[in-house]
Amino acid sequence: MSHKFIVAIDLGGTNLKSALLDLNYKIKDRRVLNTKSFKKKESLIAAIVDSVKKIIRDNQLSKKDILGVGLGLPGPIDVRNGLVHFFPNIPGWKEVRLKNILERSLSLPIFLDNDANLMALAEYKLGAARGFKNAVCITLGTGVGGGIILDGRLYRGCSFAAGEIGHIPINEKGPRCNCSGVACLETYIGSNAILRDARNLFKRDVSLEELSALAGRQNKKAKTIWSKVGSRLGTAFVGVVNLFNPDAIVIGGGVANAGKILFTRVRETIAKRAMNVQARRVKVFKAKLGSDAGLIGAAILVKQGLG
Amino acid sequence: MSHKFIVAIDLGGTNLKSALLDLNYKIKDRRVLNTKSFKKKESLIAAIVDSVKKIIRDNQLSKKDILGVGLGLPGPIDVRNGLVHFFPNIPGWKEVRLKNILERSLSLPIFLDNDANLMALAEYKLGAARGFKNAVCITLGTGVGGGIILDGRLYRGCSFAAGEIGHIPINEKGPRCNCSGVACLETYIGSNAILRDARNLFKRDVSLEELSALAGRQNKKAKTIWSKVGSRLGTAFVGVVNLFNPDAIVIGGGVANAGKILFTRVRETIAKRAMNVQARRVKVFKAKLGSDAGLIGAAILVKQGLG
Repeated sequence: MSHKFIVAIDLGGTNLKSALLDLNYKIKDRRVLNTKSFKKKESLIAAIVDSVKKIIRDNQLSKKDILGVGLGLPGPIDVRNGLVHFFPNIPGWKEVRLKNILERSLSLPIFLDNDANLMALAEYKLGAARGFKNAVCITLGTGVGGGIILDGRLYRGCSFAAGEIGHIPINEKGPRCNCSGVACLETYIGSNAILRDARNLFKRDVSLEELSALAGRQNKKAKTIWSKVGSRLGTAFVGVVNLFNPDAIVIGGGVANAGKILFTRVRETIAKRAMNVQARRVKVFKAKLGSDAGLIGAAILVKQGLG
Repeated sequence: MSHKFIVAIDLGGTNLKSALLDLNYKIKDRRVLNTKSFKKKESLIAAIVDSVKKIIRDNQLSKKDILGVGLGLPGPIDVRNGLVHFFPNIPGWKEVRLKNILERSLSLPIFLDNDANLMALAEYKLGAARGFKNAVCITLGTGVGGGIILDGRLYRGCSFAAGEIGHIPINEKGPRCNCSGVACLETYIGSNAILRDARNLFKRDVSLEELSALAGRQNKKAKTIWSKVGSRLGTAFVGVVNLFNPDAIVIGGGVANAGKILFTRVRETIAKRAMNVQARRVKVFKAKLGSDAGLIGAAILVKQGLG
């Protein structure tokens, strides 16, 4: 039997990543393009197709060596029908039958899912949540995404839209969210909100990296910001913990690099405010797979889908 | 083969109900005792044992006619070990191995679960959520309990404590909850909170029944109260809907009798504030099985456990 590989695509608002993985989910080769250089839906789809073909060809492989192509996508997906509902941060996509389109262009099995779901799948199979059967994963960035593993399987919900931890309201009244909700967690701890709070406190622009570095050097203002982020994240998790009674929470994404104070505040808030039986059971971890989680999760999706 | 029956017990802070059900979950006979007349744990356990024996004897049956005994209990239960952690509203119970105790006294198969879980099971199998594979059920009373059906099965979580919808925080700051949480849904819409709000608005004591009747006659103050309850319940459900992407929400318990305005406000809040894909999918129902849900759920538990 010949060696087999999987091609994984991780599409974000900024980067279009492609990778070649072996069946143990080792990344053998990878590429990055700038998502924004493809202005129209059609050109972005063509770039995905080209990326897949190129990474196969550049590695002296042919289609028969490829088990399938997995894609992690930044928005709600109808997994059964391979349909992209829309992308909050990439304009021009509305009810696109991406699976069909790619199958026609590539003649390979295609699997799509939401990027936060794939992050959860990867962290459960190979990362921080390995061995934890009920794990709730969150990824902190411009958007706040989530994925839920229940009884060892990705829980998708009735229209494949479950896991939106970023859109739990943490107040009855508050800022209007892009999702049309009110006071969603994301309106408080999405990167834009954090940067705005930092600007108000420091009276100048401060990047997330600087804010993390400052907190590491015990800067009071920076610690105030991260402490607030942690306690808000913790408030949302109190609800999640009381609802799901999970054994693990995994926090990933750029904002998770804020360091100790963020995780300390999340753990404290859960310990103090969640119900005793549930709070005792849950562990809070930092994600292990970093920015590769989406690619690895996409590869797992292919292997599970064909297995 | 002889006809078989199930004995179900529904223990609450007020009533100790027992019932005899056939294998189609028809209630053939029932009894009610006052929970508060049994001051000590030991006497309450003896009353449960006597209730089971009495309902069997009074129906001219013997133990061999009984498939098993199911109990719905008002607190967190370790279902695997048949262990009662504690009852928030019945003093004296702490880590009680009730399943073992009852098996020794009764020599019958014993199954225990939390009463809100059993309500969810009953509404899913025979009630309002029949045919809905991902259903979230809530029961409104002094306490606000919940049960979650995912992919057609009761989801219990890592320590059998999942589904505590009443303990989702709906604000970052707010009243301290009995569970030690802050601003839990229950602190706003538990019956005591509703009665307190009504007393403040009407400047006299108003019962829940009167409050419902007044709202039915379009009394403005009563409508204000129920509208507020509905929008707070709705806020908690926005988080639940975005997280679980369920196809059904079932609302039961005494407070659910408030009538149309409560349900209208819940539905409106979800339609306006939950994410579009999830909001479109979910239906909000009133519970169908009323105060029998616990007994019926306990009987289902026995049949599932032995089947």
